[in-house]
Amino acid sequence: MLSVEEALALVLETATPLPPATAGLAEAAGLVLAEDVPADADQPPFDKALMDGYAVRASDVVEAGRPLRLAGTIHAGEVAAGALGPGEAAAIMTGAPMPAGADAVVMVEHSEERDGAVRLRPPRAVAPGQNVLGRGRVYRLGDRLLAAGDLLTPPRIGLLAAVGHAKVRVVPRPTLAIVPTGDELVEPDQVPGPGRIRNSNAAMLAAVAIGRGLAPRVGPIAADEPAVLAQALAEGLESDVLLVTGGVSAGRKDLVPAALESRGVRQVFHKVAMKPGKPLWFGSGPGRGDRPGTLVFGLPGNPLSGLVGFLRFVGPALGRLAGRPEADETVPARLAADCTQHGDLTHFRPAALASPPGEAGEPAAIELLDSVGSADVLAAARADGFAVLPPGDRVFRRGEIVRFLPLR
Amino acid sequence: MLSVEEALALVLETATPLPPATAGLAEAAGLVLAEDVPADADQPPFDKALMDGYAVRASDVVEAGRPLRLAGTIHAGEVAAGALGPGEAAAIMTGAPMPAGADAVVMVEHSEERDGAVRLRPPRAVAPGQNVLGRGRVYRLGDRLLAAGDLLTPPRIGLLAAVGHAKVRVVPRPTLAIVPTGDELVEPDQVPGPGRIRNSNAAMLAAVAIGRGLAPRVGPIAADEPAVLAQALAEGLESDVLLVTGGVSAGRKDLVPAALESRGVRQVFHKVAMKPGKPLWFGSGPGRGDRPGTLVFGLPGNPLSGLVGFLRFVGPALGRLAGRPEADETVPARLAADCTQHGDLTHFRPAALASPPGEAGEPAAIELLDSVGSADVLAAARADGFAVLPPGDRVFRRGEIVRFLPLR
Repeated sequence: MLSVEEALALVLETATPLPPATAGLAEAAGLVLAEDVPADADQPPFDKALMDGYAVRASDVVEAGRPLRLAGTIHAGEVAAGALGPGEAAAIMTGAPMPAGADAVVMVEHSEERDGAVRLRPPRAVAPGQNVLGRGRVYRLGDRLLAAGDLLTPPRIGLLAAVGHAKVRVVPRPTLAIVPTGDELVEPDQVPGPGRIRNSNAAMLAAVAIGRGLAPRVGPIAADEPAVLAQALAEGLESDVLLVTGGVSAGRKDLVPAALESRGVRQVFHKVAMKPGKPLWFGSGPGRGDRPGTLVFGLPGNPLSGLVGFLRFVGPALGRLAGRPEADETVPARLAADCTQHGDLTHFRPAALASPPGEAGEPAAIELLDSVGSADVLAAARADGFAVLPPGDRVFRRGEIVRFLPLR
Repeated sequence: MLSVEEALALVLETATPLPPATAGLAEAAGLVLAEDVPADADQPPFDKALMDGYAVRASDVVEAGRPLRLAGTIHAGEVAAGALGPGEAAAIMTGAPMPAGADAVVMVEHSEERDGAVRLRPPRAVAPGQNVLGRGRVYRLGDRLLAAGDLLTPPRIGLLAAVGHAKVRVVPRPTLAIVPTGDELVEPDQVPGPGRIRNSNAAMLAAVAIGRGLAPRVGPIAADEPAVLAQALAEGLESDVLLVTGGVSAGRKDLVPAALESRGVRQVFHKVAMKPGKPLWFGSGPGRGDRPGTLVFGLPGNPLSGLVGFLRFVGPALGRLAGRPEADETVPARLAADCTQHGDLTHFRPAALASPPGEAGEPAAIELLDSVGSADVLAAARADGFAVLPPGDRVFRRGEIVRFLPLR
């Protein structure tokens, strides 16, 4: 059986970045840029006042206390009518262009204006360039400011706006569909009859996707009937990622793998050496024009199995589709108590944060939660994530550092 | 002048959680619950098979190798027609209810079915309860499963679905409006004339809000004219949080504080001992029926000032409105090189991650970026966040741990 690491490598090998698309800036936030972006002008485009005060010629104010003749006012967005002559000052506002001839700004707090004359209070020397940002000091026309592959953080969105890229080429947000299956399921707003339970997985998995900025399409519960299933899967295969919950273990009505294969979805693997989540099924659908084939995850119906499957495999696949560099979604954490690990499966144990990271940088402490198994939604509901215990028989000691897969 | 900590305390004192509202589960993901949620039934609601295989009476299979009579099949969602008699087995699928009389499930992989009889292969003993999750083992009818104040993580959304709460009372997501001001600004899709620049702040601040799951309303650029500004602010004051960019420093057209006060917004503070971002203005609008007054942040027009102001003050305020416990948004980080800090302001220095957290849990290393000041959008665009250097004159040494405010 594949190890977690082997299975993850296969998922990342199968997933490829989506073809670029054009997006507005609000839509582009958090996505990966798919083009290089040059500066369309010097920044700032003019020598710019950094303070409210008076534009002056620094050489004029070397002699402390000498008054300067007030020669006008320049607001942000305006341009000075003329050059500043010797012995003159112009009132100037933050962000306004410096008048020709001026080379420094005296802060309003350090000056006094009376009868058309400006004095420094208290008298002081002024250095050329003081409180002025020279034209092109941030960047120059033609500089490459951003490159394809850059993640669009908020300041990068601001930079795109600054250079006039109100629309931009990005690797788009993947689309995701969820198809819940199983004759035992009823929708959350229904009362389950004998032998039935409510469908909690679809809402839970949708919540993980929503937390990652996606807008998942959740289908109705598909009955364990080949024709019903085939129709539901056909709709799901229009998305970049399809999560099918239930129907992937070894039972007689576990029809999902066969139904997927009949729709041209090629199995990449089935079963991973992990607990919970062992019956995980993964495959790749047929190409869709310029878009790659749908990545299909058959997640076991037990809630913790589905959740761990999403966090460990679907999340990294979504990152790859979105063009992000591979990121380790686990973080180090200290165990708050001893624990024992047995067997040849990687265990994902529900765990709660017991203490935050230390001031000196020690990682957060986590406490493993009692759980009655992969159907234990209550353990998952109390968890902040999962401690990842690699295969093998051993005792992990209190204080030992393990990997922790946060719920996010 | 207020310190950063004093200003933040005032912001958090002024912000109060929004009144509860009803939301569907997709909308509720990531919000805080505003009601207690009890179990509406035992979970599981019946003794449940955890594996595909055969339901048996454990006492029948103590004698290794003895064949059992196949008495039917129970799929998930079905109920057994009758009780399992001595010497009988029923095929059963994961998630199906156990038939009366049966107390264990033999995995399909450990058994062989032929001619209407089931044998264990290889022969083995079966313990009562094996591969069965007893009724009510996860929770019992009436147990309090979730409490008001709980953050709705994905498994908690699943739990709400499991107990039939397709709609739930939550502290709603705050609404946020952005009003950009300044005669020097043109929209990102326009070419700035002399003395003008594009409005990059609104797109940048909107991106921070979008990254936190909000849907900001960005207004058009409001000119530095009292009537225009008053109208723009009136619309902005319909939201729970209003960000006004520009117009809060000491210039002659810095009309924002007066315009806000004329609309009943009470100033809480103006100016914070920080760099960048010193001219930050904060106030609270008049109450709006059952909703508290709008929290109004006047953010300086320089991009880094606005960004730091959002991360340090607006973010925590949004958390408080959404009913979250106060969270330190900074994390520890190691300095990758020496750096010097001067003066009585808290400095927020753009910094990039230089190396990830260590395997043994050492915090990430950060590198401070050269910057020409608060207009340096390029430094911000290269940053992963801001190193927070407290006031005072001192040298911070390579390897020293400081607080780091990540961009998110």
